Amino acid sequence: MKRTEIGTIGEFGLIDKITADYKPSQKSTIYGIGDDAAVIDNANYQTVVSTDLLMEGIHFDMSYTPLKHLGYKAVVVNLSDIYAMNATPKQITVSLAISSRFSVEAIEELYKGVYAACERYNVDLVGGDTTSSLKGLMISVTAIGQGEKGKIVYRNGAKPGDLICVTGDLGASYLGLQLLEREKQVYAANPEMQPVLEGHDYLLKRQLKPEARKDIVDLFEQSKLIPTAMIDISDGLASELMHICRSSGVGVFIEEAQVPIQEETYNQAIEFNMDPITVALSGGEDYELLFTVDSADLEKVRYMNDIYVIGDVTPKEDGIYLHTKGGNRHQIKAQGWRHFEQ
Amino acid sequence: MKRTEIGTIGEFGLIDKITADYKPSQKSTIYGIGDDAAVIDNANYQTVVSTDLLMEGIHFDMSYTPLKHLGYKAVVVNLSDIYAMNATPKQITVSLAISSRFSVEAIEELYKGVYAACERYNVDLVGGDTTSSLKGLMISVTAIGQGEKGKIVYRNGAKPGDLICVTGDLGASYLGLQLLEREKQVYAANPEMQPVLEGHDYLLKRQLKPEARKDIVDLFEQSKLIPTAMIDISDGLASELMHICRSSGVGVFIEEAQVPIQEETYNQAIEFNMDPITVALSGGEDYELLFTVDSADLEKVRYMNDIYVIGDVTPKEDGIYLHTKGGNRHQIKAQGWRHFEQ
Repeated sequence: MKRTEIGTIGEFGLIDKITADYKPSQKSTIYGIGDDAAVIDNANYQTVVSTDLLMEGIHFDMSYTPLKHLGYKAVVVNLSDIYAMNATPKQITVSLAISSRFSVEAIEELYKGVYAACERYNVDLVGGDTTSSLKGLMISVTAIGQGEKGKIVYRNGAKPGDLICVTGDLGASYLGLQLLEREKQVYAANPEMQPVLEGHDYLLKRQLKPEARKDIVDLFEQSKLIPTAMIDISDGLASELMHICRSSGVGVFIEEAQVPIQEETYNQAIEFNMDPITVALSGGEDYELLFTVDSADLEKVRYMNDIYVIGDVTPKEDGIYLHTKGGNRHQIKAQGWRHFEQ
Repeated sequence: MKRTEIGTIGEFGLIDKITADYKPSQKSTIYGIGDDAAVIDNANYQTVVSTDLLMEGIHFDMSYTPLKHLGYKAVVVNLSDIYAMNATPKQITVSLAISSRFSVEAIEELYKGVYAACERYNVDLVGGDTTSSLKGLMISVTAIGQGEKGKIVYRNGAKPGDLICVTGDLGASYLGLQLLEREKQVYAANPEMQPVLEGHDYLLKRQLKPEARKDIVDLFEQSKLIPTAMIDISDGLASELMHICRSSGVGVFIEEAQVPIQEETYNQAIEFNMDPITVALSGGEDYELLFTVDSADLEKVRYMNDIYVIGDVTPKEDGIYLHTKGGNRHQIKAQGWRHFEQ
């Protein structure tokens, strides 16, 4: 692969390269890249904004993350936040800080992923900032969406008696990461060893190229269903349950047997000597939707594709509990986000 | 000062601390911090979004940057981009990546500056992301504003015959930075030396605590003046002139004698053996507004406080020239942004 030092073309050259073939497609994008700020038209909608900062060595490891996947994932993770409001993402900004280790071609590869996500989810890239870093790669993405007044779903609307639902399946992304980390260690110990990643396509794809649940938000619209509370699962089911409970002032009672876990996830957890439900509760990076609905909507959600009723919302004083397959009650603890802990 | 390790309170603890005393004030802020995304109401306005990524060691040096000033500046720099669209900033998001070198108190100090800027400019902090970094501090700010349809000013509207105007004065911030760098070198060579920064208040303030020109945008509104093109001066007058010329397809002819340079800037440039006009053209970080107006608006701008007519817009083929005090014509070269060049 050809290597052009970023210094030889400068910031404007880099931006030109990155944006040369790109044309915004949203009617609401009045003005995108090329000025001080992006301009977005709004009729009677509410603008929804979300932002994430991804750091090399903290959120991703370049030794096993293809750049295109990284760009794709950085966008998807943000879009997932907008869908979690029952809103539709329309625009994103992407800011990068890049050390001299990265070539122009590498950054172009990353943007291929950004643009692939834009196309897949029908959003426009409308701005950003590009700068250098002394060390490593940082990506900051801000997503801006539209929600209809009265249809935006917050974390704070769950009430006792509501049903707790989750989309897709949980724990796969975390195990994908564990597989990648294991092979990295093996390779570090003996560079002649070949990585053993075959047969793990599903887990790896969930880690390296996750998708956001646009389809579910579309389904809500079609079914005229408005959840009472919603959040996306980035830090793990347990942590997101805590958020909903804290914001809504409620408790939850989760049925272990109803928590969706893929067979491949289940088997790999066992192979790693992990409890599959722990992986599902604390793994994170699933980017599925966790939401609550009024119990009157049970018939609506029960037959929806890829939506699982996993428990009930309870009064706050009942706490946050898991009803295990063995019939025990376990308190669910916050795992949350531990980047600051050593 | 008390030092609490961030690890002991975690991300949520940190966010709680940072947001405990904060209440959004904008009517248009439907929902701010505490959910997946911020929700902003729009009537018949256009949403304007701008973002900046600031890296320790690239954009700021912790050895002479007070954290409160850093937080303030990080916000102001973004608001300046919104004003440069002739729009009004309403909301910001602030994302931080923090190494373990920083304590909770340090981050609180930084947010004091963020909130001071929010109060001064009447904007709401509506979200962000907080994560750890392996090394150094990174700040990513996104500003969201409102502009009236038809009143938003882009870079591409300048036409031959328009007047080129600039606000405030130029070059001071760059010299403030040079002073700080000089004292840092002196201190590194001999830690017993005291920094000599007295008598340079203006230059240092321009570097460490710049302001955005909200007052000028208000003045435009009162005077019913709409510039034909506008940009804020972050990379230096020369670079911003190039942007307007490139976007508008025009040339410019600037009168050196009309470029506003403060006496303290002028004297300090001479002391540093620099040409004051070079400092004004290439220094950057002034956060003044550079704009063009129709020549019919000359009488309006001529008597406006702190606005200076510095030249004329010319046809593209006439190029980008400076008419020096000595009567010569010098081509203005792009200096631009050189972070990637070593």
